Amino acid sequence: MSYFITFEGPEGSGKTTVIDSVYRKLSETREVIKTREPGGIPISEKIREILLDKGNDMDGRTEALLFAASRRQHLVERVIPALETGKIVLCDRFIDSSLAYQGIAREIGFQDIMTINQFAIGGYMPNLTIYLKLEPEVGLKRISDNKREDNRLDQETIGFHNKVVSGYNELSTLYPERIKVVDADQAIEKVVSDTLTIIEDYINSRGEDL
Amino acid sequence: MSYFITFEGPEGSGKTTVIDSVYRKLSETREVIKTREPGGIPISEKIREILLDKGNDMDGRTEALLFAASRRQHLVERVIPALETGKIVLCDRFIDSSLAYQGIAREIGFQDIMTINQFAIGGYMPNLTIYLKLEPEVGLKRISDNKREDNRLDQETIGFHNKVVSGYNELSTLYPERIKVVDADQAIEKVVSDTLTIIEDYINSRGEDL
Repeated sequence: MSYFITFEGPEGSGKTTVIDSVYRKLSETREVIKTREPGGIPISEKIREILLDKGNDMDGRTEALLFAASRRQHLVERVIPALETGKIVLCDRFIDSSLAYQGIAREIGFQDIMTINQFAIGGYMPNLTIYLKLEPEVGLKRISDNKREDNRLDQETIGFHNKVVSGYNELSTLYPERIKVVDADQAIEKVVSDTLTIIEDYINSRGEDL
Repeated sequence: MSYFITFEGPEGSGKTTVIDSVYRKLSETREVIKTREPGGIPISEKIREILLDKGNDMDGRTEALLFAASRRQHLVERVIPALETGKIVLCDRFIDSSLAYQGIAREIGFQDIMTINQFAIGGYMPNLTIYLKLEPEVGLKRISDNKREDNRLDQETIGFHNKVVSGYNELSTLYPERIKVVDADQAIEKVVSDTLTIIEDYINSRGEDL
C-alpha cells in the first residue's frame, strides 16, 4: 500500500537528517522515495529560481501562487507516479508549509491559502505529517552555526519565524489525526527514533507490518 | 475617476490594434495607460518565460496558477498604482482569459479558475470588459497571414480555439453588465468605433464626460 508522508517544521529543525534516516530504515523492507519541492522537476526548478531571487520585490499573494504552482507540477511528475506504483513517498515540506508561512506568518489568510493549495493538490492530502517542533531561536542558531548560505526566506525577522512556529502549532491542533508532533529539541538520534515510532504505528494501524 | 477596462477575445481578434486606437482617442482628454500581462514587470516576465517555453510539459493546473501569479504581480505593480492616481487603465487580457482558456477550454473548471483568480486580483474586477468576438478560423487565418511567430499556446488545435470562443460567449452571457460584445469580423475602423462608443457610453453613464 502506498503512503504519502510529509515532514514539516521551521528552519533548522533537522528535517533533512530525519528524512534521510527514515528513508534508510523504511527502504530495508519497502519501496520508498524521498523528495522535496522542486525535486529536480524542470518547471518547478524554474519557479524556485524566481522565488529565491533576493532581488525580487514580490507580493505575498504572488509568492503563494508560485509555491502552489511549483507544488502542483512536482506532485504530478514525482509524487503521484510513485504513489500509483505502491511506493511510500517521503516529502520535505508540502501544503502545511504554505499554510504556516504564507497563510499565518504573512497573514494572507489561512482559508485563502488552503483554497489555492487544494486547487493545486486535488485529492492528494498527505496521509501523515511529521511536525518537527522547535523554538525558532534554536533552529536559526543551528543554521548560523552551520554557516549555511541564507536565501530570501531566511532573511526574515525573528518575529516572522515565531509566527511560523505559532502557525505550525495551530495546524497540529486543527489536524491532530494527520499531523503528529515530534520534539526536535533533542539529540538527533532521539528525534529520528521518535519519528520512526510514529510512522511504524501509523502503518501498523492500517493493518500492515513494516 | 479611474476606470479599469479590459480587452478580451481569441487569437487574431485585433485586440492590439483596437487598444492602440482607444488609447490614442482617450488620451486626448484623460490620463490613460495601456498595459498587458506581463507588462515589463520583471517577476511576471520570468513567469511568462516558463509559460511560453515550448519544451515544457506543463500540467493544466500548474499553468493556471502561473497565470494567476503573473496577473497578481502585474496588478500590484502596474494597474493598482495607476487606478489609485485616477487614471484609466486599458489592459489586454485579464481574468476572463483564464476563465475561457483554462476554466472552459482546458476543462479545469470554471469555478476553480474563478477561485484562484479571485485570490490573485482581490477586489480589482474590471469595471468594463470589451469582448472582441470572432470565429476562431478567421482569427487563426489572420495570424498565419501575418506570419507572426507562434508560441506554445498558438499550437493548440482548432477544437481548442472553438472551446475558447464558446467560453467567451458563455462569460458574456453570465456577466452582461460588465462584458460588452463587439463584432470583430468587420473592418478594423468599425471595430474601433464600436468599441469607443461602448466605452464613452459607460463613462457617461457614471456621470462623467469624456
